[in-house]
This record gives sequence, structure tokens and C-alpha cells, in this order.
Amino acid sequence: MEQIPILKVEGCLLVSIQVDMHDQLAMALQDDLTRRVVQTRARGVMIDISALEIVDSFIGRMLNNIAAMARVLDAVTVVVGMRPAVAITLVELGLTMTGVHTALDVDRGLKLIRTLIARGDAQTGARLATSPN
Amino acid sequence: MEQIPILKVEGCLLVSIQVDMHDQLAMALQDDLTRRVVQTRARGVMIDISALEIVDSFIGRMLNNIAAMARVLDAVTVVVGMRPAVAITLVELGLTMTGVHTALDVDRGLKLIRTLIARGDAQTGARLATSPN
Repeated sequence: MEQIPILKVEGCLLVSIQVDMHDQLAMALQDDLTRRVVQTRARGVMIDISALEIVDSFIGRMLNNIAAMARVLDAVTVVVGMRPAVAITLVELGLTMTGVHTALDVDRGLKLIRTLIARGDAQTGARLATSPN
Repeated sequence: MEQIPILKVEGCLLVSIQVDMHDQLAMALQDDLTRRVVQTRARGVMIDISALEIVDSFIGRMLNNIAAMARVLDAVTVVVGMRPAVAITLVELGLTMTGVHTALDVDRGLKLIRTLIARGDAQTGARLATSPN
């Protein structure tokens, strides 16, 4: 079962990361996601990391890459479900995720994506931001 | 990472099964799901099985159990993302999933759940049914 399913929810793509990521799986996910963005003409990508206890520089880079690829395909990327401990570690380690937006959960992520699309953020370049509410 | 995340999407709970299920994990998922149904007062549960290449009697029984538990908590259960090969095998083996509705994908699942809730199916008992559209 070495493929991460990509779900279509309300015009956005949703990926829930539950397994340990390694190079090959990350590459496959990037491939699948970019293909699905084009296929479905999705304007938003949500990545749920609620199962992750640790976000290291490898995962951080993968999220950055996905966001960058989605952006050139005119889609915004929102990371949802971050655990409190992960947020603390990210800040303490000074890991930045440029171009990756975050939201508390899927519902807020959907709302944030709609806001960003309305603002035209996908094309003008995204910044690290948290959900406005 | 032995916990399957439960996402809240538009008032429903969404579970994407990506890892091999075993007894203990299935029990934990049932526990978590029922707790979340009560906590969030969700009326619908969606279980994405698009990552599963095989649905055997163990998985079938787990889906039946989840649907039965959700039903007594007044929620409907919809299985989404079934692969064509899985559908063929289910019918050929004569495996029935009583009380489990199915829909093609998450979007149709959400629509089906809304239809079922409007019809009051959670309390009157669900049947094996496919998405109407």
C-alpha cells in the first residue's frame, strides 16, 4: 500500500499523510499531486499532517516543494491538522515553510483556500500565514 | 504512527484507510470514531478505501461494525473510493455490507450523506445502497 490517496473535497485536493515518508514516496506523492491538480483543475491542495508527531527538515522541504509546484499550477497549498508539539518544534528549530499556509483543520483549510483564491494569492505568490479566524 | 486520523469535513467525519488493518488498529479506529461522532455531533461518517487493493471479510466486518455503531449514534456511514477490482471481488465472493452505503468519491459521499440525513435514514436503519447520481 505504498501510495498515498488523494481525495477530492469541494473542488480541492486533500492528502492525509499517515505513513512514514521516504524519498521515493515523497517523489511519487509530488508526481501524483501535480497530475491530479492538472486533471481536476483544483485551485487548492490541503495536506493533513495530524498523524505526524514530528515534522523534520525532510518533511518541511517536501511540503515546500509541493506548495511551489502547486503554485506554478495556480493552486494554493494549505497544511492542516498540525499538532501543538509540531508547531512548537518548528518555531524552536527555526524551520520556515515559505509559501505554505496553515489552518487548524480541514474545514478552516477549505475556508482559507476560498479566501486565498478570492484574493488571487495563487498567482501572486503565497506567504506563510495562518487561518484568519 | 499507529493511529488513523479522523478529519472533520463539512460536518462529517472522514477517515482514509491507508495502512494494513489489524485487530488492534480496527478496535482503536472504532473507539476513536465513536468518540468523535459524539464529540462533534457529526451526522455522517465517510470511510475512504481508495488505498485498499483488497477488501476481505475482516475489513468488511470492520466496516459493518463502524456503520452499526455510527447508526446507534444517529449517524450514517458511507464508504467512498472503492476500486473497481474491489467491487468485482465483493460481488463475486458474495460479501455483503449491510448498513453500509457507498459512493464514488468524497464529494458524492457528502451529497449522499446530506440526502440520507434529509430522509432520516440514520434512525430508520440504513441499507446497502449506491449513490443516486
